[in-house]
Amino acid sequence: MAEAQTQLLEKIEYPADLRKLSEKELPDLCTELRNYIIREVSSNPGHFGASLGVIELTVALHYVYQTPYDQLVWDVGHQAYGHKILTGRRKKFHTNRRMGGISGFPKIAESEFDSFGVGHSSTSISAALGLMLAAKIKGEADRKVVAVIGDGAMTGGMAFEGLNNAATSNSDILVILNDNNMAIDPAVGGLNNYLVQMQTSPAYNRLKSDVWKILGKLNKVGPKARQVLQQHQHALKSVLLRNSNLFESFGFRYFGPVDGHDVNAMVKILADLRNIEGPKLLHVITKKGKGFAPAEQNATKWHAAPGKFDIRTGEVFVDLPLKPSPPKYQDVFGKTIVELAEKNEKITAITPAMPTGSSLNWMMEKFPERTFDVGIAEQHAVTFAAGLAANNLVPFCNIYSSFMQRSYDQIIHDVALQKLNVVLCLDRAGLVGADGATHHGVFDLAYLRNIPNMTVSAPMDEIEMRNLMYTAQLPDKGPFSIRFPRGKGIHLEWELPLSEIPVGKSREIANGKDIAVLSIGHPGNFAKEATEELSKEGVSVQHYDMRFVKPLDTETLDSVMKHFDKIITVEDGVINGGFGSAVMEYLFENGYQGRIKRLGIPDRFIDQGSPEELYRECGFDSDGICREVRKMMKG
Amino acid sequence: MAEAQTQLLEKIEYPADLRKLSEKELPDLCTELRNYIIREVSSNPGHFGASLGVIELTVALHYVYQTPYDQLVWDVGHQAYGHKILTGRRKKFHTNRRMGGISGFPKIAESEFDSFGVGHSSTSISAALGLMLAAKIKGEADRKVVAVIGDGAMTGGMAFEGLNNAATSNSDILVILNDNNMAIDPAVGGLNNYLVQMQTSPAYNRLKSDVWKILGKLNKVGPKARQVLQQHQHALKSVLLRNSNLFESFGFRYFGPVDGHDVNAMVKILADLRNIEGPKLLHVITKKGKGFAPAEQNATKWHAAPGKFDIRTGEVFVDLPLKPSPPKYQDVFGKTIVELAEKNEKITAITPAMPTGSSLNWMMEKFPERTFDVGIAEQHAVTFAAGLAANNLVPFCNIYSSFMQRSYDQIIHDVALQKLNVVLCLDRAGLVGADGATHHGVFDLAYLRNIPNMTVSAPMDEIEMRNLMYTAQLPDKGPFSIRFPRGKGIHLEWELPLSEIPVGKSREIANGKDIAVLSIGHPGNFAKEATEELSKEGVSVQHYDMRFVKPLDTETLDSVMKHFDKIITVEDGVINGGFGSAVMEYLFENGYQGRIKRLGIPDRFIDQGSPEELYRECGFDSDGICREVRKMMKG
Repeated sequence: MAEAQTQLLEKIEYPADLRKLSEKELPDLCTELRNYIIREVSSNPGHFGASLGVIELTVALHYVYQTPYDQLVWDVGHQAYGHKILTGRRKKFHTNRRMGGISGFPKIAESEFDSFGVGHSSTSISAALGLMLAAKIKGEADRKVVAVIGDGAMTGGMAFEGLNNAATSNSDILVILNDNNMAIDPAVGGLNNYLVQMQTSPAYNRLKSDVWKILGKLNKVGPKARQVLQQHQHALKSVLLRNSNLFESFGFRYFGPVDGHDVNAMVKILADLRNIEGPKLLHVITKKGKGFAPAEQNATKWHAAPGKFDIRTGEVFVDLPLKPSPPKYQDVFGKTIVELAEKNEKITAITPAMPTGSSLNWMMEKFPERTFDVGIAEQHAVTFAAGLAANNLVPFCNIYSSFMQRSYDQIIHDVALQKLNVVLCLDRAGLVGADGATHHGVFDLAYLRNIPNMTVSAPMDEIEMRNLMYTAQLPDKGPFSIRFPRGKGIHLEWELPLSEIPVGKSREIANGKDIAVLSIGHPGNFAKEATEELSKEGVSVQHYDMRFVKPLDTETLDSVMKHFDKIITVEDGVINGGFGSAVMEYLFENGYQGRIKRLGIPDRFIDQGSPEELYRECGFDSDGICREVRKMMKG
Repeated sequence: MAEAQTQLLEKIEYPADLRKLSEKELPDLCTELRNYIIREVSSNPGHFGASLGVIELTVALHYVYQTPYDQLVWDVGHQAYGHKILTGRRKKFHTNRRMGGISGFPKIAESEFDSFGVGHSSTSISAALGLMLAAKIKGEADRKVVAVIGDGAMTGGMAFEGLNNAATSNSDILVILNDNNMAIDPAVGGLNNYLVQMQTSPAYNRLKSDVWKILGKLNKVGPKARQVLQQHQHALKSVLLRNSNLFESFGFRYFGPVDGHDVNAMVKILADLRNIEGPKLLHVITKKGKGFAPAEQNATKWHAAPGKFDIRTGEVFVDLPLKPSPPKYQDVFGKTIVELAEKNEKITAITPAMPTGSSLNWMMEKFPERTFDVGIAEQHAVTFAAGLAANNLVPFCNIYSSFMQRSYDQIIHDVALQKLNVVLCLDRAGLVGADGATHHGVFDLAYLRNIPNMTVSAPMDEIEMRNLMYTAQLPDKGPFSIRFPRGKGIHLEWELPLSEIPVGKSREIANGKDIAVLSIGHPGNFAKEATEELSKEGVSVQHYDMRFVKPLDTETLDSVMKHFDKIITVEDGVINGGFGSAVMEYLFENGYQGRIKRLGIPDRFIDQGSPEELYRECGFDSDGICREVRKMMKG
């Protein structure tokens, strides 16, 4: 790739500037925009493949639609980098996903061009319908709203709920199905098969070719008619191509499939569609990672850039570790589940579209018939797991903590109420870092501990994690949740023999006499550091890794209550109603008269930053714990 | 209706007995079963119309499938009375929905014939797929699993997630779409239009008639071939009738539509389908309330029996109240929203398929363009509301508390994070009574108060409720939740002029000096009774109706902390992490040294019973409060 040009891009601060370009200039602009993103992401890694795939769509949308009056909703938002750069944020783009910088996702508070904030999947049709009907009610009859949704996100149930409602809502919504045959991993399920078939079936292609022939004869009509026909030929083609399909069944008019990388064709069809009434869906075929060969070849690896990289070769610059490094928690999960499944044939595993992200792909290879990628479908994932458990298997259902919020009702209604031995594994729990507010998994301890019959656990390190996984699959354990963070553990030797952890039993990390620190999960390591630091100052800390939020280790709590009048709890989760709150409930119901301070995440949404920056911001890193201990020791 | 016969029914304890009947006897059995249900429900009201609609389907399923080895999953479960009566529970059926009796829904713990517990909508395909694949993994290749799902439940997103996954899962699952064109209210949305069209389109019916003609010529083939063809003719017809439809798009084989009230035809087609591999869907047309004229004519009214009734005329025996009675909370909602919408044109309202149950039908009549029945689609309902709010309208989104669990992620991600002024109205909050564990709305205070930016309120009576609704729609109120119970309020004159309630401010109900009682929502009335009772015993209670779980009235709490060393909190919600927990957190973080007792719902699932029975069981009725006060006063 030669030194990238930016002469067109530099003229564009806002879409109004884009609309001053001629249609002829648009392909060059797309090249510039694409290269700009590649260059920026190569030095400041972020989501990648999705944005490269929708460059032409993004340019065409802002060219045709009068944004921000017309409104775009980007499903998930991984694909919105081009949108951000064209809507006033080019000069801030180097701060993408950093503390204090711009968000990696569209966000209402960041720009009037971000008409609806996103992050989780499959919300765009619902949100766009709301925006659209609000405009209608307010009498803004000319305002247009477009939802852009990937084929992966389309498998999420709420996308169908949105389609079903939008179809009969008498609105002019346009849904653009950005079909790249991928979620983060390849897309799965009946819908994906259907979309692939639509592109490849001979019957469909014959019909398409017939329509082109008919349109070829248009020059025989009079000039006036020809003008009208040509004006609308792109929409017309699509109307003629309409066959009764899934989206038509719902009551949407279907247009496509069209090549999403032909920006001029996209401009023409969007200009036509802008004037067509009623709910309609445009099926656009794109390639994830388009224009960057390594990303085109391995779209899963390059969904987000795997690090800083060479823009010519795709070589990733790995900061060579000076010493061997501990494993990622997701890999501890991925390896341990295989180990367990080898010994216990009842074990099955489920992921909603995250086989790579959860490292469940190892089990998928080894035990394909016992490992299920169910697509982006968190509600289904949990109830499907409950179904497996109802027939006496032991499913491990691995869902990122913030996405598990989608399954809250299913956890209560299908798992806990029926006391089924489903093992809920909540990856990416706690503050996740660069993905920010939509992705922090901070509510889980609070929302799970309210549910009867549920065991709620969090390991302090990867050895504990393995033992919790081992424990959860032993007979009669009932509903069992294990939450663990994004990122790496702390041990080099972590593949130790597995052993059972007594449910509801804590472990003592440090013995002391001045103050008790009770931690849950990985912040136990911050507490451990703090304990060591404080001992240098002559403060003696009793530290327990509580392991379980539910059931609580009441024996330990009784002892703590007896021996300490100062207690600090530490968790990587919301303080309101969380682990510390559970401890507090027990202590005070049992007559505790001392003081207790709960450290964790305060009652506000936390933006992006590195995990370390965010732990510090929330005050439960080791410095924060030391500070709180010193304060309590004083007063 | 003559005195009902039960001679066939009485022979059937379990489905094995049913299978001893001849096919000829089945229509009579259906009549007996139908009349049995009508008679039983006429004296012990329960869900009604749905069970009458699937009598023939139920008999045919148990006749053909080897239950309980073969497994049936009834979506929602309203339609499972026939199933219960045929599977060992006829003699207990008079205890249906009563305290200590059988549940109104299928329940694993109740019978081995209930292969999966239900209550909430749209779970059956996911659960059935889990049961099916578990059987396959365990080597039970001959075990069959059937999901029966209504067209209303089919609009729920997780049903589509299930279809999408089941289509490619290489399983023999049978999904029966029980199409009666109804949820509780008439079904809505694109899917419903589609199903109606499938039944009525001339093209479809012509095709159907052609197929019948072709099949008529079968007598010209040889005897052997004829035998095979006849054996499978019902399935064959359906195969020939297959047209590319929505379900085929997903990868299901589609059969139907067939008349669900012809039990012998149902037996034949099910017998064929039982031997057909792969995922398949049978589209059955039924009439809700079939066989009971009043219910056929008004299916919404008779979804559940509106009271004890005359089985000949359908006349409902109303216990004539001796004096005028207070309104239902749902009607207070329904009337007040219209009153507010008349004055504030920004107000819109949303219900997921409960216009009658929420009394939103009044607004629907008066402001059809501002009132939305989005179908059974709780996730969509909330994000759609967020979309309306993002364009500056004020949506009231009314969802029953236990169903709001379905929207937990959308509340966090789409409403609270974006600080949108969506008013979440949680009807049927707290212990709901006869519907039991699946329907108690007991988690909401706990799961909502963890969410930043959220106002969490509950009115003690209907006047307060109106004022909370008025307050929530005033400018800049942000995300605002109001939860209220099933059943009636306490006032005869409740339509008073509306006034603002300061957010986060409690009100004093009784002034006292011995002990403080802090209540939230309608149990405040139990506390009021208790206060009066206790005053007779010389115990002086200070009682605050706190009104808000979030933000808490810290001024009042500071005062309580100063003046009382004994505090009781009362709520109709889970004690773990709920309102009392919030109060406790504040008091102890601020150095409170007294005692506190939290009354509410203990950490277990509560079965059915009358609300009064259940309040007593949980110990927060007025007797329970008195008891606790006396206990604290002593020790």
